[in-house]
Formats: sequence, structure tokens, C-alpha cells
Amino acid sequence: MKLIEDKIRTYGEVLPGDILKVDCFLNHQIDVSLLAEAGREFHRLFADAGVNKILTVEASGIAVACLAAQQFGCEVLFAKKTVGSNAGSASRYCAECRSYTKGRVYQLSVTSRYLTPEDRVLILDDFLAEGNALNALLSLCEQAGAAVVGCGVIIEKAYQGGGDSIRSRGIRVESLARISSMTEDGTLTFC
Amino acid sequence: MKLIEDKIRTYGEVLPGDILKVDCFLNHQIDVSLLAEAGREFHRLFADAGVNKILTVEASGIAVACLAAQQFGCEVLFAKKTVGSNAGSASRYCAECRSYTKGRVYQLSVTSRYLTPEDRVLILDDFLAEGNALNALLSLCEQAGAAVVGCGVIIEKAYQGGGDSIRSRGIRVESLARISSMTEDGTLTFC
Repeated sequence: MKLIEDKIRTYGEVLPGDILKVDCFLNHQIDVSLLAEAGREFHRLFADAGVNKILTVEASGIAVACLAAQQFGCEVLFAKKTVGSNAGSASRYCAECRSYTKGRVYQLSVTSRYLTPEDRVLILDDFLAEGNALNALLSLCEQAGAAVVGCGVIIEKAYQGGGDSIRSRGIRVESLARISSMTEDGTLTFC
Repeated sequence: MKLIEDKIRTYGEVLPGDILKVDCFLNHQIDVSLLAEAGREFHRLFADAGVNKILTVEASGIAVACLAAQQFGCEVLFAKKTVGSNAGSASRYCAECRSYTKGRVYQLSVTSRYLTPEDRVLILDDFLAEGNALNALLSLCEQAGAAVVGCGVIIEKAYQGGGDSIRSRGIRVESLARISSMTEDGTLTFC
């Protein structure tokens, strides 16, 4: 999607450690009109898939999911990294997820009554690199017996292989911007 | 706002420890169409305030903020509870915040270049109880020299006093549903 690629070219910063910093429009400050356009694109791509729920993970994924859900007319469910006392004693599906940028392992979880075999789920997130978050979300859907129609992300760092690994399992993955290479001097190439 | 009160009456559960569980529509599963209505109401309330930025805190606040930001045509900035390597070495404003439902203290922070004296900020969140999160967000704005036009929340537990304490400082606080009492047998009364 040219709009996203242009935004990355203009505002993205490459940091040491193979990090693409896009926190001025995606994962700290949020350009809501850009994400509304992204939501329309996800809807165009998955319009016929019978999506009734969008699954994502806190925190930045929530913005992506909510603006897409407006197009699909469905609810969002976000997996939590920590569970508070307001969750009560409800039973949960859990999956481990290593954060690439935070260097720690989270236990992602969803309350089991919100993800069921009746659901047709679109999984959305902001970033796809090694695929850790998407794999954990796919595991939650599998545990629930929910059908996954596919995954969508705003930015895929394609050279890290997470997306192709998921595609090789027959799961549809759509990325609005796919980066094929990134160097520390700030040179980005899109697929 | 009757729509929110009805939703709380129908789907809210009172848990031991003075907890109102609304995770089927607000802070785990998200009823996006309800939050879009809430966003329209916040816009009606603050339409003339010259808002150019909505500040919230991860995670559930992001949904509230994004759907309101669509009405205001402005960007969202969410304060982070943890800072990852994708933040780089940017300077940050920080404020302590105790989570009522997680029983822990977070260091909320925003990158200083995204919150400036030019900003007219509306602070939004899902819940207001003791006011810890709003007070931390107000502190971030104060550190930045940003003007706060007011605060808005979906649900205020008015009897916990956080909202009135902020109002007593001359800051406008709007709540779409204000709970005046809540008992463990599930009886809720709205102001």
C-alpha cells in the first residue's frame, strides 16, 4: 500500500539492532486517519471471508484492529500480556510470545468464552518480523477451535522470515508494506 | 449516556474487591460500534475546545482514544507502561501510576517530542476510579507545557473520589457513565 510505504520512507528511522522506529505514526503516536485507510484495505482484502471477530494483541495492535473492525462491523478481542483482578477467575487460553523489541517473554492470553468454534477470525497486528506474536495468536485460535481466515499486518520485515513461515503452513498473510531489506544507514527497500 | 449505562447493566459483573468487570465490551473484547458512539459524544462535549491531540494510556484506552480521534480528526498519543528498544534514546516525560486492578506501580512515559506546548490535549481513558492514570497523564502534560482541555472516561466509579479530586483542581472531567454505588450482590446505581 503506497500510503504506508510513503509514510515509512518519510518518518521511519532505522535504529541499531535491526529496529524500524515508526513511533510517530504507528506505535506511540497514532495517525488514526492512516489506520482508517489501512482498515479499509484489510476489509477490501478479506471482505468475502465472513469475518466476525478481529483478534490482536495489546498495545499497538488495538488501534489497527479497532479501525479495521469499523469496516467489518465486528468486535475486537485483544490478547493480554498480563491479567488483572478485573478478569476474575474466567478460564483462559494461553500462549507464549517473545517480544522482539522488549527482549522478554510474555504469556498472551484470552478469556475462553470470547473465542469459540463459531468464530471466523481475522488476526491483525502492527508489525510482523519473526512472527512470534502472530504465532501465539494463531495458537490461541487453535486452542479455541476458531477458524482463522488470515492475518494482516501494517508492516512486515519480510527478510526476517516470520511471514513466509506462516504462509508455508497454508495461512493467508497480508502485509500493507513489506520490507525486503533495511540497512543501518537508513536505506529501506520494499518488496 | 444511556447506551453505556444500559450496556453496563446488561453485561457488567461486580467482582469481589470492588471490581466492575466489563471485559466483554470494553477492556478485553471491544464493542467498536459502542466506542464509536462514545467518540461522537466526547466530540459533542469538547467540540469547541480546539483539541489537536488525544492522550491516553495503553492498553484499553487506545480503543477509546482512536474512535474519538476519528471525530476530532486528530492524532492519538498513548503513554507506555514499558519502553522497548524501538523507542531509541529519545527523551521522555515520566510519571508514576498505580494500577488499581493489577496492584502494581507503572512508570508511564511519553516521548517528549510528541507532547509540546503547542498541543491542546484531551485526555481519554476507559475507567476512572481513584484517578491514578488520569493524574499521571495530567502530570505528563504539565511537564510538557501542553494545555489540557479536559478529561473524558467511559466509566467513572464516582464514589472512589478520583474524578471529583481532579475536578476540584479546575480540570473538566466528563464521564459517559457515573456509578454512585456498587454492591457485591451486583446492584449498581448511576449518578
